[in-house]
Amino acid sequence: MSRFVKIELAEITNLSVKILSQAGYGDAHAHVIAKMLYTCQIDDCHSHGLFRLFMCCQTMQAGKIDGQVLPIINNSDNAIVHADARGGMSPLAVDSAIPKLIEKTRKHGIAALAVNRCFHFSALWPEVERLAGAGLAAMAMVPSHAWVAPVGGSRGSLGTNPLAFSWPRQGKEPFTFDFATSGFARGEIELYKRAGKLLPAGVAIDKNGNPTTDPSAALDGAMLTFGGHKGSALSIMIELLAGPLIDDLTSLESMEFAAGRGGAPYHGQIIIAFDPNLFSGGRVVDNGARAERLFADIIDQGARLPSQRRYAARARNLARGYVEIPQPLHLDLLALL
Amino acid sequence: MSRFVKIELAEITNLSVKILSQAGYGDAHAHVIAKMLYTCQIDDCHSHGLFRLFMCCQTMQAGKIDGQVLPIINNSDNAIVHADARGGMSPLAVDSAIPKLIEKTRKHGIAALAVNRCFHFSALWPEVERLAGAGLAAMAMVPSHAWVAPVGGSRGSLGTNPLAFSWPRQGKEPFTFDFATSGFARGEIELYKRAGKLLPAGVAIDKNGNPTTDPSAALDGAMLTFGGHKGSALSIMIELLAGPLIDDLTSLESMEFAAGRGGAPYHGQIIIAFDPNLFSGGRVVDNGARAERLFADIIDQGARLPSQRRYAARARNLARGYVEIPQPLHLDLLALL
Repeated sequence: MSRFVKIELAEITNLSVKILSQAGYGDAHAHVIAKMLYTCQIDDCHSHGLFRLFMCCQTMQAGKIDGQVLPIINNSDNAIVHADARGGMSPLAVDSAIPKLIEKTRKHGIAALAVNRCFHFSALWPEVERLAGAGLAAMAMVPSHAWVAPVGGSRGSLGTNPLAFSWPRQGKEPFTFDFATSGFARGEIELYKRAGKLLPAGVAIDKNGNPTTDPSAALDGAMLTFGGHKGSALSIMIELLAGPLIDDLTSLESMEFAAGRGGAPYHGQIIIAFDPNLFSGGRVVDNGARAERLFADIIDQGARLPSQRRYAARARNLARGYVEIPQPLHLDLLALL
Repeated sequence: MSRFVKIELAEITNLSVKILSQAGYGDAHAHVIAKMLYTCQIDDCHSHGLFRLFMCCQTMQAGKIDGQVLPIINNSDNAIVHADARGGMSPLAVDSAIPKLIEKTRKHGIAALAVNRCFHFSALWPEVERLAGAGLAAMAMVPSHAWVAPVGGSRGSLGTNPLAFSWPRQGKEPFTFDFATSGFARGEIELYKRAGKLLPAGVAIDKNGNPTTDPSAALDGAMLTFGGHKGSALSIMIELLAGPLIDDLTSLESMEFAAGRGGAPYHGQIIIAFDPNLFSGGRVVDNGARAERLFADIIDQGARLPSQRRYAARARNLARGYVEIPQPLHLDLLALL
């Protein structure tokens, strides 16, 4: 068992900014990325918290990212916000575009943010939860690299292609989920590898297309989608909506672009937002109560809503003022400085 | 083995209209429903073809549907089309509203159709494929009745909550899927029951919350979602977007409304449409080619795209001019007259 190190909340951000700045990220990027890592780390979402600083540094080392470039947010009169990340990390582009997305959603009832030409490493739930914080429902999708085989296939064609969704709840944390359409998230497999643990059966094939539980063989082979042909179909939908729909790369093309160099994948992202007020004809309170009744019925039978563990961790960490991370991770992070 | 009966293509529609008219559906409803059943039957989609005439008749017998009422399509200047089915079957409301949805999608880039107060029995793929035929990508969702347990639960809270998606392809049938987020579609379980077959393991629980393979016990108990906690989360998202978001019933409320009487569930439906032209800045051809490359890579490794069996059936049935249905089904249909 590895020992854990306490990191004060402010130190999550300070350490992140320091590492990111030293790696070559300009102030605007470093602060928005640090905020994203903080948001994940205080929820004990280890795979997308401070751990992702390694990927941020590797992305810079791979030599294709621009650490200084500022995104350009377009100003159309339709319901699409186009954010051109211009070869930078995605969080700054999303952060800059979200106010416009909120404005367009409140005007049109439904609107979308298409982020182009971004490197992407982050969880999607902080972005959809931010929209839920503005009273909107939201869905987000990204491709990644062609690490995942379609159902019935033998090699990677699809990304891990996460789907995130958030629904605003009056006086409560939103109903949120964020799951990879691969059986496992890529980041989870990397954590298994770091921990020297075997994967469960049925989540990966090796480079010859045979089932494997070895995380290294899985990283060299391909992952499988969750839920058989349904998960595979959903993953293809995400490729299409977050790729060709918005004039950006598929996971196959993103992997080719990377040309074997590590770091974050380069592609697009789509976020779709819904205004419950315009959709329901102003009956937000009644319909919120209707949703709460569904949630209560689920909880009443002993089932859990997604994200409850994350919200509990957040409450605990905010109350005690620190998070705990494995000591080896902390040492590796300090070695980045 | 039951014998099969040949039904000429025109007879699919004629028989449907005759049965629907006699059951109490007005001309407008009977013809649009018959078109929906025809579309499914020529694709050998038996669970949503002529078989659904029983549900249409049962819905009328349950006494709550209005077989004559015409839908009202609103005319807002935002990106939402509201179609009030006013207690009629859904296909006429959707059919009447789709031209407006197409118009709004081409104007705003993204738009949604919210159908309210409809009885619903149909597959979703004919509707998203119609939008793909207009060059749009589209996603559709509906709740149903609370027949499906959330992951970790012991009783029905969720509907079978199908998700359908279609992506237009130049010169080819669209990429389309339409799957229930339950492990099995309700209609499939009914077909198992009719055929006296056992269900596969892992798709249902009985009324005491225990696993079962008996279709009758499953119909009295609850189905499970596909894909564990991910499928369960997706199903809840569909409840929210096709229910409280659009000021309409959840599957729990729909079941209460039915009060044990059979027939089609009564609730809402949402369809979201995307204009690839506005999303891609006019680069539809390049991005279509990008999507085709992904499809080719999937097919090249021996995997199948969804709906291929359906398209093959359609080509075969249209070429030979008839479909085949089981003789007992045909006899039961004739008995409706």
